[in-house]
Amino acid sequence: MAKEITSREADYSQWYNDLVLKAGLADYSPVRGCMVIKPYGFGIWEKMQAALDKRFKETGHVNAYFPLFIPKSFLSKEASHIEGFAKECAVVTHYRLINDPNGKGVIVDPDAKLEEELIVRPTSETIIWNQYKNWIQSYRDLPLLINQWANVVRWEMRTRLFLRTAEFLWQEGHTAHATAQEAIEETEKMLDVYAEFAEQYLALPVIRGRKTPNERFAGAVDTYCIEAMMQDGQALQAGTSHFLGQNFAKAFEVQFLNKEGKQEFVWATSWGVSTRLVGALIMAHSDDDGLVLPPKLAPLHVAIVPIHKGEEDLNKLREKLIPLVNELKAKGITAKLDDDDTKRPGFKFAEYELRGVPVRLAMGMRDYEAGTVEIARRDTKTKETVSFDGIADHITKLLDDIQQNMYNKALAFRDSHIRKADTWDEFLKLIEEPGFISAHWDGTSETEDKIKELTKATIRCIPLNNPQEDGICVFSGSASKERVIFARAY
Amino acid sequence: MAKEITSREADYSQWYNDLVLKAGLADYSPVRGCMVIKPYGFGIWEKMQAALDKRFKETGHVNAYFPLFIPKSFLSKEASHIEGFAKECAVVTHYRLINDPNGKGVIVDPDAKLEEELIVRPTSETIIWNQYKNWIQSYRDLPLLINQWANVVRWEMRTRLFLRTAEFLWQEGHTAHATAQEAIEETEKMLDVYAEFAEQYLALPVIRGRKTPNERFAGAVDTYCIEAMMQDGQALQAGTSHFLGQNFAKAFEVQFLNKEGKQEFVWATSWGVSTRLVGALIMAHSDDDGLVLPPKLAPLHVAIVPIHKGEEDLNKLREKLIPLVNELKAKGITAKLDDDDTKRPGFKFAEYELRGVPVRLAMGMRDYEAGTVEIARRDTKTKETVSFDGIADHITKLLDDIQQNMYNKALAFRDSHIRKADTWDEFLKLIEEPGFISAHWDGTSETEDKIKELTKATIRCIPLNNPQEDGICVFSGSASKERVIFARAY
Repeated sequence: MAKEITSREADYSQWYNDLVLKAGLADYSPVRGCMVIKPYGFGIWEKMQAALDKRFKETGHVNAYFPLFIPKSFLSKEASHIEGFAKECAVVTHYRLINDPNGKGVIVDPDAKLEEELIVRPTSETIIWNQYKNWIQSYRDLPLLINQWANVVRWEMRTRLFLRTAEFLWQEGHTAHATAQEAIEETEKMLDVYAEFAEQYLALPVIRGRKTPNERFAGAVDTYCIEAMMQDGQALQAGTSHFLGQNFAKAFEVQFLNKEGKQEFVWATSWGVSTRLVGALIMAHSDDDGLVLPPKLAPLHVAIVPIHKGEEDLNKLREKLIPLVNELKAKGITAKLDDDDTKRPGFKFAEYELRGVPVRLAMGMRDYEAGTVEIARRDTKTKETVSFDGIADHITKLLDDIQQNMYNKALAFRDSHIRKADTWDEFLKLIEEPGFISAHWDGTSETEDKIKELTKATIRCIPLNNPQEDGICVFSGSASKERVIFARAY
Repeated sequence: MAKEITSREADYSQWYNDLVLKAGLADYSPVRGCMVIKPYGFGIWEKMQAALDKRFKETGHVNAYFPLFIPKSFLSKEASHIEGFAKECAVVTHYRLINDPNGKGVIVDPDAKLEEELIVRPTSETIIWNQYKNWIQSYRDLPLLINQWANVVRWEMRTRLFLRTAEFLWQEGHTAHATAQEAIEETEKMLDVYAEFAEQYLALPVIRGRKTPNERFAGAVDTYCIEAMMQDGQALQAGTSHFLGQNFAKAFEVQFLNKEGKQEFVWATSWGVSTRLVGALIMAHSDDDGLVLPPKLAPLHVAIVPIHKGEEDLNKLREKLIPLVNELKAKGITAKLDDDDTKRPGFKFAEYELRGVPVRLAMGMRDYEAGTVEIARRDTKTKETVSFDGIADHITKLLDDIQQNMYNKALAFRDSHIRKADTWDEFLKLIEEPGFISAHWDGTSETEDKIKELTKATIRCIPLNNPQEDGICVFSGSASKERVIFARAY
């Protein structure tokens, strides 16, 4: 095969990069840390967007669009927000280029300096809450349930395709509420939306939980998250939902007249998922031959390869296969008849494996005569010869099976890789093995920091509905009431 | 009514701003020249996006995403491109903020200066063709038919909500072809896609044409456009499609091995429409009472207002009206039963008129008893009482009628406002009246510039399939073979 992929065992990190590049999902760009999302990768993101957007609207949200640029002074208004985001942002200082007087291209016009610098949004709480000030006067204006699909920029020093890029695409929900309780319910509701999306679409089991104060979003009172396990046992945060309390309302002076006729600060949430989910999808399911995509997010569901000698045979096969493509299309299944004569069937098989197409059909003249077709599934790499009669229904069912099987496999892998550590020695041993560690923690930032320093493991979350049990902190030995999830993370 | 709108006659420009703000389409932001697209305005844009995206895909295009930032040196590579875009761009020079040592907020970290400045994309030809260099080797890689939905920034000095903003949303198609002919066919095909979209969705008749060299896109060999007439008789360019020749392929050294085994530069097109179309939609159809939206782009099709005294009557009305909402929904028609008791029916009627909802139903107890309902259409402001039986089918048909009627009305207005000028005196007289002027032009930039200087009128386009007729230039008196369209424009 022309496009060789490093094996997971040999170098997991290189395997990931190979897959992204060779399956045509993304490409490096000449701009440091920024990637190009190629059509095949963008096709996956579009499917994610469509499913999420539908769910956001079903839960009462509407879309809007706020400016890309944030005045520098806005970022400073919420004290912890600026601490979290100021270190990594793109700053616009000028608004014009002029011809270089030395005749070499163009230079920045020194006379076109902005009075106040503009920050390319790393997240939009500040610009949005500044606007909400004008939109919210009374409890009748609440709740305000707005989502935005946008690009954001965080000047990351170490970048990875999809997982951590300077510019990325995401959605950010920003809601405003009359009571703390309603805002907390919204925060939890959107966490559920994310968790269900991850499980039902990405076929990715996730742990719903809360972040520790150390890992909270800058400006949040409470950060909820979903955490997934990759095939190397590392954690990947797949989505976050924040209860912001009244922090941004106070910073931007957003008050409303409540039902009792009193001025009160508005309660807020924000929540987001990003193109990093494409990276999660790859890392969770794919193998050494290429991508393995869950049918619900695969841009192409079925690749159909005719095997023939000469145009006459091909035409016979086409007569059967073209109507099948249309029949599948009517069922919402995307199929492609690949009758390109310049490539051999074996090459095509490898190509569709690389690209993670869930189902592959092959039909030769013997199948044609016998009324059969060979059907191969990408997830298990098994194939069988089945009757061509009723093949569309067979495929429909098979796609459901594949979606479910991928989830089950990921779930079994994850559950067998969460281990309890009850002593520091156990912890040190387990952290060198793939997987999550469930351990008692004394609740202090100091212990959390120390464990991270010593092991690179962070507390991924305090699971929701966490069983309460008496124990002692794995590091300090202090009393603890519940276990938390530790892991090394992307 | 609480939200008074300036009349078109009193001040057309203020009427437009009033509408945009009061109908809740958009809002000013604290960032100079940047607007906030509010949910109702964004709902219209989403409908535009969905219709266009579907059509792009039907014509063989796929979506992708390229970086927001363009290295400064890239812009200089295509000589006329830089002339056109360098004067109006946002320049990123630094990548970090630090706490102000004087304790006041944050300042730009002088140590975090970029080696090469990054330009926030004003359009993406350069960054995309730099990437195409890696993606195109042979004629087998062609055509490459890619579209991007993105935000772009052009530092406009004078901005108008939707029509001209520093940041705006758009799509930009960028295609690569093996022959000039194929690229020209693509350019023309996408112009047709835009024209059909404008006519069928925006209910906006457009003139398909070519720009003069003066008005061409910076870097294009030929720019095609669609031009629409607003209610004040001014022109609005509603979409452009560019044949770029080999200009960007040469600038970025993108060659391919053709079928004859020879290296050749690739042929290019680009084409785009933007959120400015929302502005066009408003200016083309709306009236002094508010928006008039064509059903195909209206976020809400039918507003249903019950008229009643007390909860008992309301419940009776609900029993009839809630099933209607669901019946309409099943037909793809968005309806809202507005049973908010805190607002009077008259207030609601005015509100839905302001927001341009195409159809309004009102049902009182007399209707309830008689089995009738009052139905009002927004475009003509007529209303009638009809049988409630079969109302869903009636509405379906009415929405089609409204869509068609709005187009017909705009077409009649436009066609009655294109006038021929055969002398300079006629031209000077007509240009002070609303509408387009059809006149002979000698084909020189000098004449075009002079006419613009004297009258603020520009050549909007040389219509496609333009009748050829001998004449003399309305300004210079030189020989001419065809008329062109002059107008003042947005």
